[in-house]
Amino acid sequence: MSRSVLMLPGDGIGPEIVAEAEKVLKKVNEQFELGLQFDHGLVGGAAIDETGEPLPGKTLDRAEKSDAILLGAVGGPKWDKLEMAKRPEKGLLGLRSNLKLFANLRPAILYPQLASASSLKPEVVSGLDIMIVRELTGGIYFGQPRGVRKLEGGERQGYNTYVYSESEIRRIGRVAFEAAQQRSGKLCSVDKANVLEVTVLWREIMDDLAKEYPDVELSHMYVDNAAMQLVRAPKQFDVIVTGNMFGDILSDEAAMLTGSIGMLPSASLNSEKQGMYEPCHGSAPDIAGQGIANPLATILSGAMMLRYSLGEEKAAEAIEAAVSKVLDQGLRTADIMSEGAKQVSTREMGDAVLAAL
Amino acid sequence: MSRSVLMLPGDGIGPEIVAEAEKVLKKVNEQFELGLQFDHGLVGGAAIDETGEPLPGKTLDRAEKSDAILLGAVGGPKWDKLEMAKRPEKGLLGLRSNLKLFANLRPAILYPQLASASSLKPEVVSGLDIMIVRELTGGIYFGQPRGVRKLEGGERQGYNTYVYSESEIRRIGRVAFEAAQQRSGKLCSVDKANVLEVTVLWREIMDDLAKEYPDVELSHMYVDNAAMQLVRAPKQFDVIVTGNMFGDILSDEAAMLTGSIGMLPSASLNSEKQGMYEPCHGSAPDIAGQGIANPLATILSGAMMLRYSLGEEKAAEAIEAAVSKVLDQGLRTADIMSEGAKQVSTREMGDAVLAAL
Ligand SMILES: CC(C)[C@H](C(=O)O)[C@@H](O)C(=O)O
Ligand SMILES: CC(C)[C@H](C(=O)O)[C@@H](O)C(=O)O
Repeated sequence: MSRSVLMLPGDGIGPEIVAEAEKVLKKVNEQFELGLQFDHGLVGGAAIDETGEPLPGKTLDRAEKSDAILLGAVGGPKWDKLEMAKRPEKGLLGLRSNLKLFANLRPAILYPQLASASSLKPEVVSGLDIMIVRELTGGIYFGQPRGVRKLEGGERQGYNTYVYSESEIRRIGRVAFEAAQQRSGKLCSVDKANVLEVTVLWREIMDDLAKEYPDVELSHMYVDNAAMQLVRAPKQFDVIVTGNMFGDILSDEAAMLTGSIGMLPSASLNSEKQGMYEPCHGSAPDIAGQGIANPLATILSGAMMLRYSLGEEKAAEAIEAAVSKVLDQGLRTADIMSEGAKQVSTREMGDAVLAAL
Repeated sequence: MSRSVLMLPGDGIGPEIVAEAEKVLKKVNEQFELGLQFDHGLVGGAAIDETGEPLPGKTLDRAEKSDAILLGAVGGPKWDKLEMAKRPEKGLLGLRSNLKLFANLRPAILYPQLASASSLKPEVVSGLDIMIVRELTGGIYFGQPRGVRKLEGGERQGYNTYVYSESEIRRIGRVAFEAAQQRSGKLCSVDKANVLEVTVLWREIMDDLAKEYPDVELSHMYVDNAAMQLVRAPKQFDVIVTGNMFGDILSDEAAMLTGSIGMLPSASLNSEKQGMYEPCHGSAPDIAGQGIANPLATILSGAMMLRYSLGEEKAAEAIEAAVSKVLDQGLRTADIMSEGAKQVSTREMGDAVLAAL
């Protein structure tokens, strides 16, 4: 049995961090005899530079045929002036929609070794472990119609459409209820049902689903309040489910509560459990090429890939244990550096994880 | 010269906190011989219960004729099952749109006396003083078309429209650039221009305006990153300008950084400087009627009203000084209580501010 993993380094620090994750994946591939085959492709700005397209047909083809994808990050100021359809982000969005990766799992976990990195008081965040389930192929990021039009008086008007159908809501709802079942049994659905009709439907479907999951306690929260509560008392949350845009905002906010977004992986899954895995952080063009980026979020994304798409729990745990070990050893990249620790480069961090395996 | 102030207590803790603010405003009215006349009206759930409408014609009439409005808060579980058009929130939204109150100013200020209330580390938030300028009468909260429709297959689809015209963006942009001029000269515009066309136009207009304000340094940030940066290093911001929805989310997040949202006022202005003033917090139905709500945000909203709509800077400063004094005296409502302070009721807090005037 041979399974294929597509590596898409992308832009900015993407190539550096994906290289380290690839070393780690290749090591567990041998150790655990996983039979994984690795392939590489272009996406985002790197693909634009080479082919003129953020998502070349060849990349999409390979992505569709692979069992799982590991992506670095896309985007950067170099491509910021391009028209919307030709931007690096369209490569990422195109992969998500073409592969129907509707379920985005974004854990926000505070590593005990890094507790001091948080900007929040230790008692507010110690032990933090939230799972945000973000709908990833619908909502306003994909809604039609969209664009900029001329109004009668001659001025321009920009417009986008925030749209969800019942089945889209139900599908992501199930993922969230199931995640809650496996965790504390608590699920909070975030919407703006006091103002936006699309989220009134969202709330109705979530309530409806709740009847099928009597072991899960469902609550609802308005998005503005959720943004506050994450700051005030984040440990009140276990699983949060929300749409594409609110999920984008809240998952980044939640990630930053830990103070170490360089540590946080994510998974984007379709209904066949095929998945794309990427760090929560972006392409960080300001530090690209300097060898100082933190590869751990990408390495941990590799672990999520082994768990969710490849069914290799043991190998996943081995990687997670190795990461924990290097943190115990006091090794830190610049973004998570603190007094008394030893600062290492991107490559040194990757090597240390390899050695700990 | 007589000027009229309309008091709209609304729902939940609204009546309790507005009563204290009214006492305070009446006192400065005498002290500074302001010639203010006070009137009262119904809005939100309170208006629904009495008249069936969240914004009765009589209230809107009076609001249009008044120089300024002080609003408590609207909404509560009692009215949560009503159809969208009949909800308490429509009263608030109706006032905003009918009076064209497009400019919402939401300061997030950390009171030194309350520094320990924040869930963030003192060094991260001490001295925090951010001004969020939120567009309030456009964007997705008002965009058409909106609703829930039946799709061909029979399932329902909810939809809302995120829309801004050039002139709407320019108008709020000017307010923000002028606010930045009066402060540090730094303005950050928040959008999602890497995905949403409407915010590409937003960014373009902001860049365009920047040429007219060479003394202001304009930067742009994606909303997901802004949600993170507010947690990581909020003091990097001075003035933030953004649309209705992002402003709703980010201003609540920013307010909570202070740990004392019960202290934060807000102003909503139109181009004639007529304004509606309200606390940043909501109607808190869970503690309504118990006499424990914090009236200071509403009292400080009264001060903003004197400053922005009535041109009474001295009276505004007198109220702010009185609030500072009661904090120095160690008086605290339950929400901002800390060890060693003296806990007081809503009314006792109002009385203390009166006494300090
Ligand atoms: C790069 C961008 C299109 C993307 C998004 O907004 O979905 C990113 O912010 C994310 O959260 O994965
Ligand atoms: C009550 C609600 C309609 C309102 C809004 O979303 O604008 C509130 O959250 C606010 O921020 O003033």
